[in-house]
Amino acid sequence: MTWTNSNNKALSERAQAVIPMGMYGHQSVLLLPDDYPQFFSRAQGAHLWDVDGNRYLDFLCGYGPNLFGYGDKEIDDSYVVRMREGDTMTGPGEAMVELAEAMTAMVEHADWAMFCKNGTDATTMAMMIARNHTGKKTIVLAKGAYHGAAPWCTPLKKGVTPADRANQVFYEYNDVDSLEAAVREAGDDLAAIFASPIKHDTFVDQQLPDPAYAKRARELCDEQGALLIVDDVRAGFRLARDSSWSLVGVKPDLSSWGKAIANGHPISALLGADKARMAAATIYATGSYWFSAAPMAAALTTMKRIRDTDYLERTQALGRRLRDGLDESAARNGFALRQTGPAELPLIMVDDDPTLAKGYFWNQALMKRGVYFHPWHNMFICAAMTDADIDHAVEAADDSFKLLKAAGPLEAPAKLAFMNSMLES
Amino acid sequence: MTWTNSNNKALSERAQAVIPMGMYGHQSVLLLPDDYPQFFSRAQGAHLWDVDGNRYLDFLCGYGPNLFGYGDKEIDDSYVVRMREGDTMTGPGEAMVELAEAMTAMVEHADWAMFCKNGTDATTMAMMIARNHTGKKTIVLAKGAYHGAAPWCTPLKKGVTPADRANQVFYEYNDVDSLEAAVREAGDDLAAIFASPIKHDTFVDQQLPDPAYAKRARELCDEQGALLIVDDVRAGFRLARDSSWSLVGVKPDLSSWGKAIANGHPISALLGADKARMAAATIYATGSYWFSAAPMAAALTTMKRIRDTDYLERTQALGRRLRDGLDESAARNGFALRQTGPAELPLIMVDDDPTLAKGYFWNQALMKRGVYFHPWHNMFICAAMTDADIDHAVEAADDSFKLLKAAGPLEAPAKLAFMNSMLES
Repeated sequence: MTWTNSNNKALSERAQAVIPMGMYGHQSVLLLPDDYPQFFSRAQGAHLWDVDGNRYLDFLCGYGPNLFGYGDKEIDDSYVVRMREGDTMTGPGEAMVELAEAMTAMVEHADWAMFCKNGTDATTMAMMIARNHTGKKTIVLAKGAYHGAAPWCTPLKKGVTPADRANQVFYEYNDVDSLEAAVREAGDDLAAIFASPIKHDTFVDQQLPDPAYAKRARELCDEQGALLIVDDVRAGFRLARDSSWSLVGVKPDLSSWGKAIANGHPISALLGADKARMAAATIYATGSYWFSAAPMAAALTTMKRIRDTDYLERTQALGRRLRDGLDESAARNGFALRQTGPAELPLIMVDDDPTLAKGYFWNQALMKRGVYFHPWHNMFICAAMTDADIDHAVEAADDSFKLLKAAGPLEAPAKLAFMNSMLES
Repeated sequence: MTWTNSNNKALSERAQAVIPMGMYGHQSVLLLPDDYPQFFSRAQGAHLWDVDGNRYLDFLCGYGPNLFGYGDKEIDDSYVVRMREGDTMTGPGEAMVELAEAMTAMVEHADWAMFCKNGTDATTMAMMIARNHTGKKTIVLAKGAYHGAAPWCTPLKKGVTPADRANQVFYEYNDVDSLEAAVREAGDDLAAIFASPIKHDTFVDQQLPDPAYAKRARELCDEQGALLIVDDVRAGFRLARDSSWSLVGVKPDLSSWGKAIANGHPISALLGADKARMAAATIYATGSYWFSAAPMAAALTTMKRIRDTDYLERTQALGRRLRDGLDESAARNGFALRQTGPAELPLIMVDDDPTLAKGYFWNQALMKRGVYFHPWHNMFICAAMTDADIDHAVEAADDSFKLLKAAGPLEAPAKLAFMNSMLES
């Protein structure tokens, strides 16, 4: 089937009229290679179809929520059954207690749970709880880390005031000296240290956490009476069946969760240790749909699948198969890739590509061959993928490398200059 | 059937172990009369069932989302059909554009729409857009108004820093002099005036907007180049098939929506005028589930029902029937009620009741007779209620007044003292 995009173009024009710039947020294709489709009609298993009927093997997985495959029947059925009985009511259903029990049983550091809708809700509550617990204000964060899209943390600063960013000190991820310096700067006002479970910032290589850094973060919090917060919204249950920092032997006091916890149904969570329970109980945080029963029922089914299946080992094996296949293909064609982070949460960039021109070309060619990759955001492996899917992606990558080689020198993508101007302003 | 609560008690004990204080947020029964059930098993039409099987005619309507009745088949079916095709994908579906078209067609001041999850998301984006549009920082808000649960606006201050509340000036709702004084205090730094469509604060009588106040807010924004924001999350489409301030002839620049717009499915929205389009396009705001297709499909069906049915006139007539019936019952029993706000969004408090002791007693008696009222939060009429339902509520109210009369002098509810200590700290 030939790749076409007339429906997407027509819909994008309609969108321009009634949505600012036609789309916004992390799923906007504004900064992706030209021709990436903005609108999708269908999703099933590991695949997406855009509004022109083009099919993609989707390595973005909804930017994280798709862990067991789109439209997973068992998980979606539990949503629908609960929805028909009662979803957004005047109070929660039994599923809220069951889910809190299931998640605290799964995540070792956690004694209690609170549920919300956005990842940002969970990180914002974590910040408020840390300040309430300590009576102090300063939070220490890694430079460039994403913790959500509220005024205190959103990556662009339009509409943000200096007061929104007061009481924040930054350190370099994985750098113990830099972390210690930030904590010194916080002085006797340290409320919390925030950490992503891995460095999964956009545009730069990912990094696994250095255990020495993670352990030092724990020690510094303990010395100061501050809380250690691990933001597991993006990576949670994709690296471990516990907090992602269980892999480095460090227990946070609070952890934020979302995305994969209900396989795409709208729910996020904050988990915490007993130490922070009273502080959690006395902040005021709420939302119209935070207590809806249907997403909790879907999350419960997802928790069982996480606990009882080999999804983790399978996504890891699929990720390694992709990594190895792509490395071989790159070498065969005279290129090299920078594949960083865990294989099941890969960031894949073309090496020797300071302007991202090669990456944009290569990703676009892959997209037009039915493989949806991202040139500068980490991707996700879902458990509905098969070895054959991965091999198909590697073949498409091989074809795309050949085209890239034939293309010769490329100009820098103009849209990235636009983004840099936004970041600077 | 006798009212019982053993299941609710058992579940609440389990909840205490794994959720801070057993529950949090606006649906916590902590500050409601004793014995209000915390957990519900089922909802259908105008009724709720708690986990002990007690049935309630529910005047809270999920605190707003239930407009056409719980479990409305047509709306829920559109959710399920779309969910099975693809819900949380790597980009939005066509429904996003259709919904933006439908909402901007319905709400006269609106040229564009953005979708999100919490009401707080929409009010926070409104604040950011106003600051981005004007390049100024100060927002002017009505004292005691609820605009969400983020650090900048949450009603309790635990975990909130002074910087979170910087650049805010307050006025008294409906008081032109006070509004003008607040705008003078903002000086040349005014970004926005926030207004609730009606004064629907908790614990105090509601007020309809004085047209002179609404018009002055519009003029002051125009004089200063600031944006006028009407927060229609709670009242939207319950008072009008347009912005609630269409009733006083004033068009805001931005309006926030949520709750009833998808009859309980998780979606909120920010609508805006062309003037603010560029500022909206350049803030960064997003969330994991903001582009999910299923809630948008449900919202589209809800919009059609709002446009094409007499739900509004029916809920208004039901509200008036309730108001009149309760007033007669109160008078018959030697009491008076303060019934304030629009009849379809009623706040009902017992008069001459400074400690709320009478209100707590009366509400508890109603609850045990299967009528779920709230002693200090506005309530909601849904279109699934019937005249017979209202008459049943009035009969239960009559019985409850008789009990109240027989009870003699009552002590102030101790739990309210707890809340006051929270508010002061």
